[in-house]
Amino acid sequence: MSAPIATIRRIAITTGGGDAPGLNAVIQAVTRAALQRGWACLGIRDGYDGLLRPERYRPGDGCIALTPERVEGIAALGGTLLGSTNQGNPFAYPVRQADGSTALADRSQDLLDALAREQIDALVAVGGDGSLAIAHQLAQRGLRVVGVPKTIDNDLDGTVTTFGFDTAVAFASECIDRLHTTAASHHRIIAVEVMGRYAGWIALHAGLAGGAHAILLPELPFDLAAVAALIARREAQGQSYSIVVVAEGARPHDGAHATLAPAEAGHAERLGGMGEQVSQALARLTGKDARCVVLGHLLRGGSPTAYDRVAALRFGAAAVRALAAGQQDVMVALQGGDVRPVPLADVAGRMKAVPLDGDTLATARDLGVCLGA
Amino acid sequence: MSAPIATIRRIAITTGGGDAPGLNAVIQAVTRAALQRGWACLGIRDGYDGLLRPERYRPGDGCIALTPERVEGIAALGGTLLGSTNQGNPFAYPVRQADGSTALADRSQDLLDALAREQIDALVAVGGDGSLAIAHQLAQRGLRVVGVPKTIDNDLDGTVTTFGFDTAVAFASECIDRLHTTAASHHRIIAVEVMGRYAGWIALHAGLAGGAHAILLPELPFDLAAVAALIARREAQGQSYSIVVVAEGARPHDGAHATLAPAEAGHAERLGGMGEQVSQALARLTGKDARCVVLGHLLRGGSPTAYDRVAALRFGAAAVRALAAGQQDVMVALQGGDVRPVPLADVAGRMKAVPLDGDTLATARDLGVCLGA
Amino acid sequence: MSAPIATIRRIAITTGGGDAPGLNAVIQAVTRAALQRGWACLGIRDGYDGLLRPERYRPGDGCIALTPERVEGIAALGGTLLGSTNQGNPFAYPVRQADGSTALADRSQDLLDALAREQIDALVAVGGDGSLAIAHQLAQRGLRVVGVPKTIDNDLDGTVTTFGFDTAVAFASECIDRLHTTAASHHRIIAVEVMGRYAGWIALHAGLAGGAHAILLPELPFDLAAVAALIARREAQGQSYSIVVVAEGARPHDGAHATLAPAEAGHAERLGGMGEQVSQALARLTGKDARCVVLGHLLRGGSPTAYDRVAALRFGAAAVRALAAGQQDVMVALQGGDVRPVPLADVAGRMKAVPLDGDTLATARDLGVCLGA
Amino acid sequence: MSAPIATIRRIAITTGGGDAPGLNAVIQAVTRAALQRGWACLGIRDGYDGLLRPERYRPGDGCIALTPERVEGIAALGGTLLGSTNQGNPFAYPVRQADGSTALADRSQDLLDALAREQIDALVAVGGDGSLAIAHQLAQRGLRVVGVPKTIDNDLDGTVTTFGFDTAVAFASECIDRLHTTAASHHRIIAVEVMGRYAGWIALHAGLAGGAHAILLPELPFDLAAVAALIARREAQGQSYSIVVVAEGARPHDGAHATLAPAEAGHAERLGGMGEQVSQALARLTGKDARCVVLGHLLRGGSPTAYDRVAALRFGAAAVRALAAGQQDVMVALQGGDVRPVPLADVAGRMKAVPLDGDTLATARDLGVCLGA
Repeated sequence: MSAPIATIRRIAITTGGGDAPGLNAVIQAVTRAALQRGWACLGIRDGYDGLLRPERYRPGDGCIALTPERVEGIAALGGTLLGSTNQGNPFAYPVRQADGSTALADRSQDLLDALAREQIDALVAVGGDGSLAIAHQLAQRGLRVVGVPKTIDNDLDGTVTTFGFDTAVAFASECIDRLHTTAASHHRIIAVEVMGRYAGWIALHAGLAGGAHAILLPELPFDLAAVAALIARREAQGQSYSIVVVAEGARPHDGAHATLAPAEAGHAERLGGMGEQVSQALARLTGKDARCVVLGHLLRGGSPTAYDRVAALRFGAAAVRALAAGQQDVMVALQGGDVRPVPLADVAGRMKAVPLDGDTLATARDLGVCLGA
Repeated sequence: MSAPIATIRRIAITTGGGDAPGLNAVIQAVTRAALQRGWACLGIRDGYDGLLRPERYRPGDGCIALTPERVEGIAALGGTLLGSTNQGNPFAYPVRQADGSTALADRSQDLLDALAREQIDALVAVGGDGSLAIAHQLAQRGLRVVGVPKTIDNDLDGTVTTFGFDTAVAFASECIDRLHTTAASHHRIIAVEVMGRYAGWIALHAGLAGGAHAILLPELPFDLAAVAALIARREAQGQSYSIVVVAEGARPHDGAHATLAPAEAGHAERLGGMGEQVSQALARLTGKDARCVVLGHLLRGGSPTAYDRVAALRFGAAAVRALAAGQQDVMVALQGGDVRPVPLADVAGRMKAVPLDGDTLATARDLGVCLGA
Repeated sequence: MSAPIATIRRIAITTGGGDAPGLNAVIQAVTRAALQRGWACLGIRDGYDGLLRPERYRPGDGCIALTPERVEGIAALGGTLLGSTNQGNPFAYPVRQADGSTALADRSQDLLDALAREQIDALVAVGGDGSLAIAHQLAQRGLRVVGVPKTIDNDLDGTVTTFGFDTAVAFASECIDRLHTTAASHHRIIAVEVMGRYAGWIALHAGLAGGAHAILLPELPFDLAAVAALIARREAQGQSYSIVVVAEGARPHDGAHATLAPAEAGHAERLGGMGEQVSQALARLTGKDARCVVLGHLLRGGSPTAYDRVAALRFGAAAVRALAAGQQDVMVALQGGDVRPVPLADVAGRMKAVPLDGDTLATARDLGVCLGA
Repeated sequence: MSAPIATIRRIAITTGGGDAPGLNAVIQAVTRAALQRGWACLGIRDGYDGLLRPERYRPGDGCIALTPERVEGIAALGGTLLGSTNQGNPFAYPVRQADGSTALADRSQDLLDALAREQIDALVAVGGDGSLAIAHQLAQRGLRVVGVPKTIDNDLDGTVTTFGFDTAVAFASECIDRLHTTAASHHRIIAVEVMGRYAGWIALHAGLAGGAHAILLPELPFDLAAVAALIARREAQGQSYSIVVVAEGARPHDGAHATLAPAEAGHAERLGGMGEQVSQALARLTGKDARCVVLGHLLRGGSPTAYDRVAALRFGAAAVRALAAGQQDVMVALQGGDVRPVPLADVAGRMKAVPLDGDTLATARDLGVCLGA
C-alpha cells in the first residue's frame, strides 16, 4: 500500500451513496490540507456523474474548483456540496439503450480517461461499503486512491467509528425525549422507527440515550409477546406508557411471526415499515393506544454534531496526509484513538453488526430494556 | 362575569385534549400563585377522569395534591403531569352499557358532586375548543371556572397567541432545516407533513422559517400543477431540490383533483396522509425522486421554547389572579400585549384561520413561496 | 407619510448598530420582495460606510448587489452579511483631522449624493433607536425611506415585538437551564448577567423561562438584602442553590447601596459588571459559594429562532410593500397581529421599559420570584 | 484484583469533584443494574459528607435510597442528584479545631465504620483523579470498590474516553458557532475561554468543531505574535474577524511573554483569566476591536449529549457487572470499543495530555488553524 511518492499537483474528491452529516467537513479538510501542500483540489459532482455525464451539467459545472472561499464555513453544514447518488458505479453504470431500456456498462476506463484529462494525480473517495469497493477497484486499475469511510449506520468494519452516526443518534435521541412526554400524557405506546437495515447501532444507542423501554434490532430477532409482557409489567407499576425503538431491519424470529397479525407479517409493503407493523401489533396485544413515528430522512440531514465535525475533519486531513506520504489503495480509519491508513483490501465489504456479547447490549439488559428476545 | 368574591380555600386544575408544550408550566404557575394566596391546589388526573372514574386509579391517586415540591422544575418539561384525554366530556361521558356497548351519558352532576366532596371552590380548566366549551357549561351550572386556552395549532380566536404553537413551529422549522441538506444532496423533492387539520398556522410559520419552496394550507385549496411548475423553474435555475410543507388538512381545489392520481384523490386512508399523496403526485408530475416525512407526534412533545414557557406561566398566573379578583366564566387571553380575562361566552367555539389578506401570507408571496394557488 | 408613487427601479438596504439574529432574514425578504417587483436591490456595507468610505473596501465592494443567489439560505444565519457599525452616523460622522484627532462632521449630503450616483430610489434602513432617528432625518432631507426596527433588547416603542429578542431570550434561557444542574450539584449561587442596559426584558423573560429564583431589572432598583433573605428561605427548605438573573443595567436603590460592598458600589469598572458585583455581594451576605456567568456576546449571535425568522421576514417584506404603496418616512411595526407602517416621527426616540404594572411582572411575583424590591 | 465472590446485598454510590453531564446516568445505571441483581442501592450525599457529617442533613437524608422511581428519567438530566464536593477527602478531612481554625484529619476509619453500620457490601466511586485515588486507598483498607472515571476535561489516562467531555465540547462548539456571526458582523476578534487547566482537549475539539482560527492549549506554549500575524493575513484576504479559542491553562512560552503587556503578564488575577488577557493583548497587537467570552460553568451543566448518556450508562452498568464478577480495586474503562475493568493502581494519578504527535493536532495544522507556536 506504500508507493514511490510521485509528485502530486492536483487531487479530486468525490462523495457517494446516502448523505451523512460530516461530508462537507471532510471536503473542507481535504481541500485545506491539499491547498496547504500546494495541490489544487477538484470536487466531482454527484459521485462520478460530473465526469461521466458532463452533459447533465452546465459547462464547467460537472467538477467544482475547491477554493478556500468555496469551503469556508461548510464544516457546520449537513449534506454534501458535491451532491451524491446511489446509482453511479463506474463499473456498472446505467446506460440508456436504443430501445429505451437501461443496461449496466463498465465505464471505468471512461472515468480514468476523464480523470487524466483533468490532470488529477490522486483521488479521495468518500463513501460507504459500495463506494469503497469501487475505490479499491479503481486503485487496482492504477489510480492513486485513498478512501474515507462514511456510514451513518456505523456498520463499517475496520474503523472504531466514523462520522454521521453520532448526529443521527443525537437527533433520534432528541426525538425520543420529545415522544416521552406526549406518550406519557396520553398513556400511549409509541413505536419509533430508525434507520438500520442490517445493523442496529442507531436503534441501540438512540434507544439507550432516549430511555426507550424496548429496543428491536436486526441482530436479535424479536418476539412481541416479550414486549407486550414488559408493557403489562409497567402498567402494573403505574407506568402507563412505553417507547419502543425499532430498527427498520428488525424482524420477528421464526416462531414469533404469530405476534404480527397475518396481514402484518405478510404484507409489509402495504402496511408501511416495521415500526408501523410493531405499533399495530402491540395495540392488538395490549389493548392500548399505539402510534408510530418514522424518523427516516430526518436522521440524514442537519448540522453535524461537534463529535462528527471533528471526526470528519480528522478523516479528511488524514486522507491527504496519507497521499502525501505515498500511501494508496488505503482507507483512513480510527483505531486505538488515532486516525491512520489501513489497506482497503482488508476492510472493503466487511459489515460490523452489534456484537451480541458486547458491553453495550449488556448495558441495555442491565437497565431492564426489553430486547424482545 | 364578575361576582361577589366568595372566599377561596382550595382550587383544582385540569388539562384536557391533546397535549401541548407548556401545560406543565401552566400547572406550575397556577399552583404557585394559588399557594402564595394561601389556597390549596389539586390536580385532577386525565381531564375529569380522576373524579369520574376513581376506580381506574390507585386510592388517592385520581387527584394529586400540587405542592411546591411536586411542581419544582416542571415548567421546562413537555406534556402534562396530570395526564390528558380526548374522551372525557362530563356532559357526554362514555358509559359501558349492560350489553357491552358504550353510550354517552350526562355525568356533569357527578362531577359537580365530586368537586364539592373535594371541597373545591374554583376550577382552572386548561384546554382547547372542546374543553373550553365544557368549562363554559360548568360555569353556567354554577361552578366558579376560569379557562386557559391551549391550542398547538394556534387556531383559537380571542387570544393573539397561546402556548405550544411556538414550540411546534420551532421544531418543525428545525426539521425542515435538516431536510434541506439531504434533499439538496440527493436532488429530491421532500414533502413535510405537519399538524393543522383546519388551520395552516404551523405550516405557514414553519414553512417560512424553514425556507420551504411551497406551502399548502387548509385555507387555500391547492393545485399541484402550480407546485410542479415552481419545481421546474427551480430546476431551470440549477436548484435541483425542493421542500414542500403540507398541512395535514390541505386539500386540492375542485378543479385540481386531477393533479392527485385517481387513487390518491379517492383513497386517502389507504395512501397515508396528504403529505404522502402530495409526494407521490409530485413525483409523477415532475419525474423527480420525491419523499415524504410526517412530523406528527414529534411536534406535540418536548421541552417548551422560552417563548411558550413565558406565555404558559403568564396564562396560569393570570387565571389565579382572575379568580382572586372574583372573575368567573372567563378565559384568560393575550390581547394587546397583556394577558387578561375575557368572557368564555365570547370565545368558545370560534376558530381562527390564517387570514387570506394578512401580512404573513403576503410575506410568503413576496418571498416567492408557492402556495399552490 | 403617503406620497405620489414615483417609479422605483432600485433600492438600497443598510443595517446599523449592534447585530441581532434576524438581520439576514430581513435582507433576504427585502431582496426577494424587491426583485419580484422588478426592482434591483443593493446592500450598503457597514451602515453607510460602504458609501461614505469607499476607500476602505476593495473596488466595487462597498455595496453588494443582492441577487437571489446571494441571499439563498441566509434567513437561517445570524449576523448581517452587510456588516454593521455603531459609529457611522452621517449627520455626525467621525472625520480624521489634520492634527490626527477625530472630529464629527455632517456628511449627510455626501451620503445623499452617493445614493443618487448609485441611482437609488429608496432606502430600507434596519436598525435601532439611533439608526431610525437617522432614517427619519434622511427622510426629511427628501430621501424615500422605510425603517425596520431592530432591537435585541425589545426596548423600542411603537411595535409589539421585533426580531432578535426571542433568540436572545431562548439562548439565555437554555444557559440558565444548564446552570441549574451545576449550581444544585455544588450548592452554589450563580448570578447570570444578561444584556439590558435600560430595559429588563431579556432578564425578565429569560429569568421566567429559566426558572430563576431572583431577577434584577433596571426598572426596579434592588436591595440585595431581599435576595439574601430569599436564599436563606430556600436553604431552610432544603434548596441549597439559587440562580439570580441580573440585567447589566440593574442598580441598587439609593438606600440599598450598603448591600454592595463599598468597593463594589463605587468601582464598578474595576470589579467587572453588575453580575460580578451581585455575585460577590451575595457571597458575603449569605456565606455561600457564589459565581458569575456573563452571557454577553453569546446572546447576539447564532441562528435566529423560528419566531425571529418569521418576524424578520415579515418586517422585510412589509418594508418593500410600504415602498411600493408610496409610503415614506415610516417604520414597519407589529401592531394588533399585523405588520404595518407607522410614521417614523411617532416612534423615533421612544423607549419601551418593562411596565411595572404589566402582567409579566405580576407573573414573576405570583411565582415567588424575588425582584429585589 | 479478582476476589472470592462474597455475597453482595447492598451497595453504595458516591459522586465526587466537579460535576459533569452524565453523572445522573451513571447513578441510574448502577441503581438499575444493582436492583436487577436483587441488591439494594444507597446514594451517599455530597461525596462522603452524607456519612461523615450526618448533622448537616435532615435525619435520614445523608444517604438516599435509590429506588426505580427515584432514578426514573434522570439519565437526561445534568448534574448529580447526590450532590458533590471538592473538599471531602476522608483521608484528609477538614475538621474544625477548638480555636476556630480548620485542620485536616484522617477520617477514613469513620467512613469505613459508617459504611459497615449501613451494611454496605461494596462501593461504586464516581470521580476524577482525586476521587479515584481515594477509592484506591479505600480498597487497600479492605473495602470492595469499583471506580468510574469522570473528567469533563478528558484528561484521565487508562480510558479512551469518558462522559461529560462530549457535552462540554458540543456546547462550546455551539457557542463558537454563535460568536462567528456577531464577530463577522462587527469585524471583531473574539477570544473564547474554555475549561482545561492542564490539558487542552476541550479547546482543541471545540475549536476544530467551531471553526476557530486559532487555538491555544496548555500543551503548546504560545506566542501571540503568531496569532496576530494570522489575523493580519486574514485581514489581507478580506476576512475581517477572527475567533481565538483559549484553554484556561494556556500560557505564553518563555520568550513570548512580551506579547502580553507587563500588566497582563504579571497580574493575571486582577486582569481576569487567560482569555481576557489574550483578548487585550491581541487588541493592542492588531489595532482591532477584541472581546472575550468565558464559557466556564456553562460547560459543566446541561443535559448530556446522547454520546455521553450512552457512555455513562455503559460505565455504570459495567461497574455493577464488575462487582458481580468479584472484581475490586478496579476502574471501569473504555478500551478498544468495550468498557471493561482495569486495576485502579494502574491508572490512578496518571494525566492524559493532548499528544503533540497525534492526528488531531496534525488536523488542526492541516486546516491552517494557528496554534500560536
